[in-house]
Amino acid sequence: MTAPERRYVITFGCPDRTGIIARISGFLAEHGGWIVEAAYHTDPDTGWFFTRQVVRADSLPFDAAELRARFGEVAADLSAESSWQVSDTGERRRAVVLVSKAGHCLYDLLGRVASGELDVDIAAVIGNHESLADITRAHGIPFHHVPFPAGGKEEAFEEVRKLVDEHEPHAVVLARFMQILPADLCREWAGRAINIHHSFLPSFIGAKPYHQAHTRGVKLVGATCHYVTADLDAGPIIDQDVIRVDHGDSVEDMVRKGRDIEKVTLARGLRWHLENRVLVHGNRTVVF
Amino acid sequence: MTAPERRYVITFGCPDRTGIIARISGFLAEHGGWIVEAAYHTDPDTGWFFTRQVVRADSLPFDAAELRARFGEVAADLSAESSWQVSDTGERRRAVVLVSKAGHCLYDLLGRVASGELDVDIAAVIGNHESLADITRAHGIPFHHVPFPAGGKEEAFEEVRKLVDEHEPHAVVLARFMQILPADLCREWAGRAINIHHSFLPSFIGAKPYHQAHTRGVKLVGATCHYVTADLDAGPIIDQDVIRVDHGDSVEDMVRKGRDIEKVTLARGLRWHLENRVLVHGNRTVVF
Amino acid sequence: MTAPERRYVITFGCPDRTGIIARISGFLAEHGGWIVEAAYHTDPDTGWFFTRQVVRADSLPFDAAELRARFGEVAADLSAESSWQVSDTGERRRAVVLVSKAGHCLYDLLGRVASGELDVDIAAVIGNHESLADITRAHGIPFHHVPFPAGGKEEAFEEVRKLVDEHEPHAVVLARFMQILPADLCREWAGRAINIHHSFLPSFIGAKPYHQAHTRGVKLVGATCHYVTADLDAGPIIDQDVIRVDHGDSVEDMVRKGRDIEKVTLARGLRWHLENRVLVHGNRTVVF
Amino acid sequence: MTAPERRYVITFGCPDRTGIIARISGFLAEHGGWIVEAAYHTDPDTGWFFTRQVVRADSLPFDAAELRARFGEVAADLSAESSWQVSDTGERRRAVVLVSKAGHCLYDLLGRVASGELDVDIAAVIGNHESLADITRAHGIPFHHVPFPAGGKEEAFEEVRKLVDEHEPHAVVLARFMQILPADLCREWAGRAINIHHSFLPSFIGAKPYHQAHTRGVKLVGATCHYVTADLDAGPIIDQDVIRVDHGDSVEDMVRKGRDIEKVTLARGLRWHLENRVLVHGNRTVVF
Repeated sequence: MTAPERRYVITFGCPDRTGIIARISGFLAEHGGWIVEAAYHTDPDTGWFFTRQVVRADSLPFDAAELRARFGEVAADLSAESSWQVSDTGERRRAVVLVSKAGHCLYDLLGRVASGELDVDIAAVIGNHESLADITRAHGIPFHHVPFPAGGKEEAFEEVRKLVDEHEPHAVVLARFMQILPADLCREWAGRAINIHHSFLPSFIGAKPYHQAHTRGVKLVGATCHYVTADLDAGPIIDQDVIRVDHGDSVEDMVRKGRDIEKVTLARGLRWHLENRVLVHGNRTVVF
Repeated sequence: MTAPERRYVITFGCPDRTGIIARISGFLAEHGGWIVEAAYHTDPDTGWFFTRQVVRADSLPFDAAELRARFGEVAADLSAESSWQVSDTGERRRAVVLVSKAGHCLYDLLGRVASGELDVDIAAVIGNHESLADITRAHGIPFHHVPFPAGGKEEAFEEVRKLVDEHEPHAVVLARFMQILPADLCREWAGRAINIHHSFLPSFIGAKPYHQAHTRGVKLVGATCHYVTADLDAGPIIDQDVIRVDHGDSVEDMVRKGRDIEKVTLARGLRWHLENRVLVHGNRTVVF
Repeated sequence: MTAPERRYVITFGCPDRTGIIARISGFLAEHGGWIVEAAYHTDPDTGWFFTRQVVRADSLPFDAAELRARFGEVAADLSAESSWQVSDTGERRRAVVLVSKAGHCLYDLLGRVASGELDVDIAAVIGNHESLADITRAHGIPFHHVPFPAGGKEEAFEEVRKLVDEHEPHAVVLARFMQILPADLCREWAGRAINIHHSFLPSFIGAKPYHQAHTRGVKLVGATCHYVTADLDAGPIIDQDVIRVDHGDSVEDMVRKGRDIEKVTLARGLRWHLENRVLVHGNRTVVF
Repeated sequence: MTAPERRYVITFGCPDRTGIIARISGFLAEHGGWIVEAAYHTDPDTGWFFTRQVVRADSLPFDAAELRARFGEVAADLSAESSWQVSDTGERRRAVVLVSKAGHCLYDLLGRVASGELDVDIAAVIGNHESLADITRAHGIPFHHVPFPAGGKEEAFEEVRKLVDEHEPHAVVLARFMQILPADLCREWAGRAINIHHSFLPSFIGAKPYHQAHTRGVKLVGATCHYVTADLDAGPIIDQDVIRVDHGDSVEDMVRKGRDIEKVTLARGLRWHLENRVLVHGNRTVVF
């Protein structure tokens, strides 16, 4: 595989009106910008417009910083939300992964990165247990053990915050971390902290969702990849998937089957996030 | 298609122990019974054993009534639940369908029956609106209009009960009926009243589940076919399915996509019920 | 449901280059055109660009014919394929359906039309058997019986052609028609004749695909909705779907399970076609 | 997790007739055998009967060898195929994995074994390239590099055979091995060599299936886990799965999406094989 061409990715939302696409594409065309991907969405409920545009870097006569500066005018004209972005695929993405004991999501992410499928640097893995230290280090990635003793969670989260923030990661991945982030971390990492919940939300919020699912006698179990907010398991959903179960499946079988969905759904959601495909609006996402 | 051979279907549950299969199959073998389908399930949580056995009628030297009488001894020996059954595929299955305005599930059922895919007599369709009368009658099936005026629901349900009960149906199908069955009808029709709920239960119980789903921003919508109990949308689940939606889907799009799942899930659940494939145990089902 | 707003739908393909989106959206913005849906695709293999734009009719100061005339200049400037289109959602879509004996796809289409889910006039149903005449007429739709005797197929197809062409339909739907269209009809109806093949193409081309699937021991059976071309079962694919089967499924079970996929896949493909969502390029489709 | 109880698994096929289940369950009941799982299948096409029975080891008064000896009489009485088996879950399963450069299936298997999800010892990994040596060894598993030079394949396969056979593995897993096994190895490892093919067979047999799929314009890509036979990609299918693709997906996107299906399908097929759930009959499988 050759390295993909460098590209700039513009994402933003603004109130819908006539002429938005013309304004953006006119601006790009004026500078010779070659659009290789373009997606639009209008939400009739909120009257809001969203777009993601991917431009070949070599088609523009200036760099990402200059594009950002110049595009600011367009964004202002269109009253864009302050969350508009110009990102540069030439800048490596960084992620920090938080784990507990269950390794399936971490193994999967490490495998994807090692085989070149997921284009991100995992800057560090932080675990409240040590069980995943060896495999992390075998991949050449630092592992930090931060215990979460009863009564010492506040200090533990303070240490996690420091370990995470020093990498200024594009994504903080809760790969079955099992600890509830405090509200201030949810705020600080808003739009970057990604969780995988092991149920088809909003079914089975909270602890032991597979046990809840087994008790209710459902015929499918699911997984939900979502941004973390202070409201438990209620953040904007990036992706979901399900897998069929039946009466013959014990809770343990459900756990095992569910893992295949958790891994894939987390990896897919993370990939979309890192490619700036996910725009958050209120408590919902637009995934381009 | 030639008519399928006549078969007897034995279903029952009993406390698990050694020798159950030997007892049943020994009894059948003794009389020359040719088992063409056999399924077993042991639930380790409750220590309960379930089975469904299908025997060629022509392999036994007696009829269904005699089989029922003789099998009673086996059932007693094994302390079987009183819900054990010997059913006879030579006896036509009858269903009554309750509808409101939305026709997609009824159209689907009528089409399946007409094309010989679903082997049941629809004895009558009862609607609280008249909109589905013509298509029902075009299929040669009686349609009864029972209005549900505010303040007159009790009388309306009494009329529905009479119209249903005169057919002694094997299944009472709530094909998007939209009225909540009173507790006494839930009891009377327990294990025979089948509902299709337009969400992936236990998510979005009650009214307007697609609106709820849209507001929550889920990425899949679902449908649940379940037995009706007095506890709203909480009865034993027979089958569930989901379909993918995205940010571009309005509530109306979700409704439309969801219909394809509702139709199929209801038809599948009804078919399994009519073939005596569904055993209820507590609030869960075993589907053989 | 209120009637949806009238809209114009522009679809076209042209060689990719800088400024296409700016040219189109500039043209529309100039006249106040309010774009409510816009989709783009660039095919790096062929260097071809495709788009579908949906504009509110009431936002433009002229009608569809005038839009077509004026857009012709833009299309010429961009060297668009001659298949570019401006269609008007205010013009009712018409379809003619060809059937044989199997009714499941026809029942499904009739039900969708009757319940207002599929927005099309079924102008006529033509069958080489009479078995589906009654249900068609119960829906108030003319049914024409055209027998296909051995040695008389050419004349039969000539009659079918006349019966179809008098309606100038937007779609000719082969709803399990089972007769192979002659090459001249394939040409005449190119891009309008839609078939549902009862396998996951290119597996199991030709006759009795479920028998072929059973013999091969596959674990999923499928259905393929595609445009008809002179090359049997090899036309551009619009949509496909699959359903799980296992060792317990006989050929008849596969047929039955497969029907649910055939119905849904045909209805979905037809809907996309009627909404001008499907662009054909070579032997592949872009589905917006 | 506590270790699961030791169990004996009986699998066999024989001509169908009355009394088979009674004979087997009678034999087991006579010795106090507690059946915890039992599955049956009758194939009406071939008139063949198949079963898999799982018995608690501690419920029988003898060990696996003795059970095998005694059950031999039952098998003989019923004219069972010579492939009947009594396996013992107390005996660890062993697998050898053959790989080339693509690591996604190997990473996945190693992760599943490490996290205790797949209960097997990977005795060795053999690669015709060295790229997966490090990750294999990081898991404490020997890696053997056997180059496959043009003109030297016969010798290479001879070396592979030796490296595999010294472990007497229950499964030889071709995890995207990319080399075609010679006929003699297919014979020797018949019923033990498991391949993952990166298409929904029988579509796209042979090389570069994703390229073939892209050219044909399919809307789903798939993966097939099957036993290896001398007939390329035509062995008995254990499991298959598919994932949706669209016009926006390049061949590389299809490859990436397909990998998630390949991994899961291989792991599932391997698990079923190791649990003696897969019975081969002709070119088809019964999966209990």
